[in-house]
Amino acid sequence: MTSEKNGAGAAGFHCPVPFSRYPSVMLAHGGGGRLMHQLIEEMFLPAFSNPSLEARHDGACLDIAGTRLAFTTDSYVVRPLFFPGGDIGTLAINGTVNDLAMCGAQPLYLSAGFILEEGLPADTLGRIILSMQQAAREAGVLLVTGDTKVVDRGKGDGIYINTAGIGALRRELAIGPSSVRPDDVILLSGDIGRHGMAVMAVREGLSFETMIESDCAPLSALVLALLDAGIEVHCMRDPTRGGLASTLVEIAESSGMQIRIDEAAVPIRPEVQAACEILGFDPLYVANEGRFVAFIPARDAERALALMRSHPQGQQASRIGSVADVGPAVVVMRSRIGGTRIVDMLSGEQLPRIC
Amino acid sequence: MTSEKNGAGAAGFHCPVPFSRYPSVMLAHGGGGRLMHQLIEEMFLPAFSNPSLEARHDGACLDIAGTRLAFTTDSYVVRPLFFPGGDIGTLAINGTVNDLAMCGAQPLYLSAGFILEEGLPADTLGRIILSMQQAAREAGVLLVTGDTKVVDRGKGDGIYINTAGIGALRRELAIGPSSVRPDDVILLSGDIGRHGMAVMAVREGLSFETMIESDCAPLSALVLALLDAGIEVHCMRDPTRGGLASTLVEIAESSGMQIRIDEAAVPIRPEVQAACEILGFDPLYVANEGRFVAFIPARDAERALALMRSHPQGQQASRIGSVADVGPAVVVMRSRIGGTRIVDMLSGEQLPRIC
Repeated sequence: MTSEKNGAGAAGFHCPVPFSRYPSVMLAHGGGGRLMHQLIEEMFLPAFSNPSLEARHDGACLDIAGTRLAFTTDSYVVRPLFFPGGDIGTLAINGTVNDLAMCGAQPLYLSAGFILEEGLPADTLGRIILSMQQAAREAGVLLVTGDTKVVDRGKGDGIYINTAGIGALRRELAIGPSSVRPDDVILLSGDIGRHGMAVMAVREGLSFETMIESDCAPLSALVLALLDAGIEVHCMRDPTRGGLASTLVEIAESSGMQIRIDEAAVPIRPEVQAACEILGFDPLYVANEGRFVAFIPARDAERALALMRSHPQGQQASRIGSVADVGPAVVVMRSRIGGTRIVDMLSGEQLPRIC
Repeated sequence: MTSEKNGAGAAGFHCPVPFSRYPSVMLAHGGGGRLMHQLIEEMFLPAFSNPSLEARHDGACLDIAGTRLAFTTDSYVVRPLFFPGGDIGTLAINGTVNDLAMCGAQPLYLSAGFILEEGLPADTLGRIILSMQQAAREAGVLLVTGDTKVVDRGKGDGIYINTAGIGALRRELAIGPSSVRPDDVILLSGDIGRHGMAVMAVREGLSFETMIESDCAPLSALVLALLDAGIEVHCMRDPTRGGLASTLVEIAESSGMQIRIDEAAVPIRPEVQAACEILGFDPLYVANEGRFVAFIPARDAERALALMRSHPQGQQASRIGSVADVGPAVVVMRSRIGGTRIVDMLSGEQLPRIC
């Protein structure tokens, strides 16, 4: 049996550390927080070590015969499948489009892998395909290759979708944590917490006076407008699982820089704030699907902010903080009442299966 | 709710036909046979219509800034996870490597998306990662980007893996069904039925005197050797789900040509034949994961066959038939006892979750 062979060969696999702490996979291993990062850092990265993977970015930047490409993948397991502002199909397109955009790439082509559960109503599948068709059109990408698998009833959850994407990189500069510089200004493209709270509200059967709609949207047009305007973007990332807090901690740790943000500058809609209070969530840790942070040299910040605010996806853009090269590589937040605290990555799991 | 919006907008979605025959997804929709083709032809293709998808090939052939690439994806849901000759990890690498090879591309980069079920033993995940590491090394590809999601206990089946792959196309000629020509000779790279029967034997708890090992292997080195030798390959495909029969029917239908094969020329190991008889399967419909058929001009056939036989992955290569431009676009087989019959695509599902 190969399984035995593999067992014997496991001595060559030098990363059994993290799971000895946890004998099996927990929901939090997929939550975008500390546990997921341990899984990646201690199991996946050592096994598949290469420069692209080690860049710890949303996608890999590749050079094939002189053509520079970004390549990325995400699986989507959101529950429920439909929520205000989108569904698993819109997420599957926009999520991967946005990961390409975060590399500074123009998204071009997507693949789609469907894992369907026996018994999924045909009508549900049809609605999801329609959403994907519309989202792909809106984002200007072509779905060029795909795969369908069906698993037995009770061995799935209706439908899981994986998309992978290829984009064309526009510039020579590597956009990513390694390019973050001291004195970079941090811009956030809009209000946070809507996607996570829209999904949670449906899941918990809550209704509010103002319905919370997911912010799910393609970010590529706005990102390409920034790059085309000659703004020297050093790093971008979309704060999905784990929210804005986890994203900033990731960048602080990967870049080795201290990030300082101002809580009062982070836009949050009142209904999102209210829902977070009812359900006991901190909006800084709630997932977004149409927002990004950009690290930009101070000289370009005002121009970038004006450009973002003139774009449909960036109307509420704000300057939320800056980068310092003194002090430890953490995220320090000045709270609304004037104190400061260190912001940690999401630990454990508060919002499982949000994307 | 967007779900309602989508419902209203569904009038723009012009392919509700196939599922009106079947109100929900069945296992057979993932089986590689007639039902899966209906799903693709009548739901996915009309929704995402574009030339790459319509080529109905194992991968999309793309041109990005003058660089020609192949792009493909597959999800892997095989059960059990470990079987003689491989596991879900080796399959996830080799399956996607082989789809790239079938386009005539040199596989370069893979993505991996993991959907883990809460409670998956850490040791199982570690063994699968190790297998992927080894398989990627053997196939000469780098895993450059990835994603991990965790679903609740009872909403998965341990682990599902999606891989997408990018390869560099070597030549101008499109390799695919549209390039099949009358008088092309059909070569098969080795014996058939091993992968499917290896998995089924474990699943059914059968043991035979000679253990059946999956043929799971990367085909790219052999394929590139054929191309490098200047052999004018018109079409290649690896007969996975649905087996050799479904693959040939697919090519006959896509190319509009008649395919004629000789049953006696198709190598099948005695233990595979025996297992098929016990379990009631026709080896022509059983999945393979390390075999391919190649459509080659008659003038190159002997040279191609010799080259294949000199390669570890092609030692049992044989000439199994040829293409004709007379008669309907079907597969006609001369049986061992001298009669002829039309071979149809797999209908229904005989071997669910074989890859």
